[in-house]
Amino acid sequence: MRKIGKQEIEDIAVGAALLGTGGGGDPYIGKLMALQAIEEYGPVTVLDLDEVPDDALVVPSSMMGAPTVMLEKIPSGEEAIEAFQKLEEHLGKKIYATFPIEAGGVNSMLPFALAARLGLPVIDADGMGRAFPELQMVTFYLDGISATPAVIADEKGNTALLSTIDNVWTERIARAATIQMGGSVMNAMYSMTGKNLKESGISNILRLEEEIGKTIRLAKANNVNAIQEVLKTVGGFELFQGKVTDINRKTESGFARGIATFEGLNEYRDETLQLRFQNEHLLAQTDKRLLCVTPDLIAVLDAETGLPITTEGIRYGSRCVIIGIPCHPKWRTEKGIETVGPKYFGYDVDYTPVEELVNQEVTK
Amino acid sequence: MRKIGKQEIEDIAVGAALLGTGGGGDPYIGKLMALQAIEEYGPVTVLDLDEVPDDALVVPSSMMGAPTVMLEKIPSGEEAIEAFQKLEEHLGKKIYATFPIEAGGVNSMLPFALAARLGLPVIDADGMGRAFPELQMVTFYLDGISATPAVIADEKGNTALLSTIDNVWTERIARAATIQMGGSVMNAMYSMTGKNLKESGISNILRLEEEIGKTIRLAKANNVNAIQEVLKTVGGFELFQGKVTDINRKTESGFARGIATFEGLNEYRDETLQLRFQNEHLLAQTDKRLLCVTPDLIAVLDAETGLPITTEGIRYGSRCVIIGIPCHPKWRTEKGIETVGPKYFGYDVDYTPVEELVNQEVTK
Repeated sequence: MRKIGKQEIEDIAVGAALLGTGGGGDPYIGKLMALQAIEEYGPVTVLDLDEVPDDALVVPSSMMGAPTVMLEKIPSGEEAIEAFQKLEEHLGKKIYATFPIEAGGVNSMLPFALAARLGLPVIDADGMGRAFPELQMVTFYLDGISATPAVIADEKGNTALLSTIDNVWTERIARAATIQMGGSVMNAMYSMTGKNLKESGISNILRLEEEIGKTIRLAKANNVNAIQEVLKTVGGFELFQGKVTDINRKTESGFARGIATFEGLNEYRDETLQLRFQNEHLLAQTDKRLLCVTPDLIAVLDAETGLPITTEGIRYGSRCVIIGIPCHPKWRTEKGIETVGPKYFGYDVDYTPVEELVNQEVTK
Repeated sequence: MRKIGKQEIEDIAVGAALLGTGGGGDPYIGKLMALQAIEEYGPVTVLDLDEVPDDALVVPSSMMGAPTVMLEKIPSGEEAIEAFQKLEEHLGKKIYATFPIEAGGVNSMLPFALAARLGLPVIDADGMGRAFPELQMVTFYLDGISATPAVIADEKGNTALLSTIDNVWTERIARAATIQMGGSVMNAMYSMTGKNLKESGISNILRLEEEIGKTIRLAKANNVNAIQEVLKTVGGFELFQGKVTDINRKTESGFARGIATFEGLNEYRDETLQLRFQNEHLLAQTDKRLLCVTPDLIAVLDAETGLPITTEGIRYGSRCVIIGIPCHPKWRTEKGIETVGPKYFGYDVDYTPVEELVNQEVTK
């Protein structure tokens, strides 16, 4: 058990945005929401997974919708409370603690904002170890945990309580409703027991995020290269250095979809990188080689500061370093690849672990 | 209080399809569903509105979606039961009786199918006195009765319980969910008290439907013109006689939308009628004159049998008589016209009562 104050929030927001691989929302907005709540209600208690009772009711707090919309429609916090209260009412049981569903600038911060207001602890675990665009893309789904009963709530006061035959149906119906409800909503879904979370969650994700954020923050003072230090912290690989020459994004079917093109710099100057995304970065390839593909993580970092850039933050002319990070082993199982691998997103490539792709390059 | 058996069902289905003005579902399917349930569970009790206790919980049973989809996806009846049970569970109160939300081949029959299975009575009242395509288009809306809590249920076992700030939001969110759920769902919404229904409902609608159906059925045996007899029964007007020369329909945004063109026959042979619909017929005009416009009723009848034809049943070459019927006075109020008048549907004409349009013609 530990207390999370403002500095920790700042660091977690940055680390979460990096693991959010371009999605999961803007870290600046997420940070403001959490900081404001902590300012008003005091620091939040974080529990390690093994501190949670097996029979406790735990529910992640998250947002769904296109990150492009979240930028324009900042949630007040009331929606999240309403979603939690409707779910508690339906289940007839108090929620013991919340936790992030995924890593991401907003989705890692929302549990803190909600926990501060409701006086709940936050558990140091999530359901992805990164971010993904669809509701069923959580380790809980791989383990057969139902997303429903699921409450979605908008800022106007509309709510929907869904009960579906599987989590893919939750995604379909909730996504369609979300588009009508203004493009983003707050969720209370994937309610589970402490035991479920211990078995299916990805633990110590907040510690890792905080460590990443701290590494980037202190790099200048410590006179080290922020990106190289981050690669050590996360066990990742540098994939490319480039300058943004084209960015093509649209918000469709409730997602921010597109392709960013990077012209190579330094030792990559003969190559052009194409980065494909659907809320999150999903595939990085040059004309010559595949560099990294979902479910492995692809993060775009500012070449100078090492700070992560979200898909909506990619700007023409920005100089970036693109890094790859091996995903959690749960995603490398057959059901994992089926659920979030390249084929699911319509890319005609087989999944190959990023460490193998990187080694192929070296031996070439 | 009276009992409704098979013959009454046959007649009500036909009369409801006529008042359904092309929408509300196919009378053949609706009839089969109701007849099957009555066959299995026995006749259904119909209550007059004044027989319902003021404090009774009453809930209409209906379907939403494109009638074109209903033709391909006949509900099993389980969805309706599930929707009612979820709503009862949420409200913590037993439903006393059901009733139709609108007139229509399917939507007037569903309450009978459900009532037979659940052993509930059906109340002789509805919320339109005709059919309309959107959820908020009920007399209850004019009187400020909320559509939510609203349950929608599909045949796969998915349900959504909506709570919205107004009935237009219910329509938006439920429509989007319906499209995902296969294009049609069963509803349990607009729960109200007996007193609400007495104040806001349109009473004796089942009696009128039965009378229409009986008139058409017996016309041949009675050696009378079915259509002329129906016009007397409903207080309507013959608008046109024509042959279908073009029918342009598509299912979009969850609705069956389109235009049917009729080449005039007999005294109308110099004119061509265009009939515009969105699930229901909404506007009938020739190149020379406006004949009838929503919220007044426009029904297309088979020239020979007098049987009503739904929008999806309009076939090239069919010989039809198009009739107009004054709508219930509740629709002719300012809020009524705003909610269901021609402007709402995007037609740039002012609402003029059908009896005035008909008289204009006569004086011409």
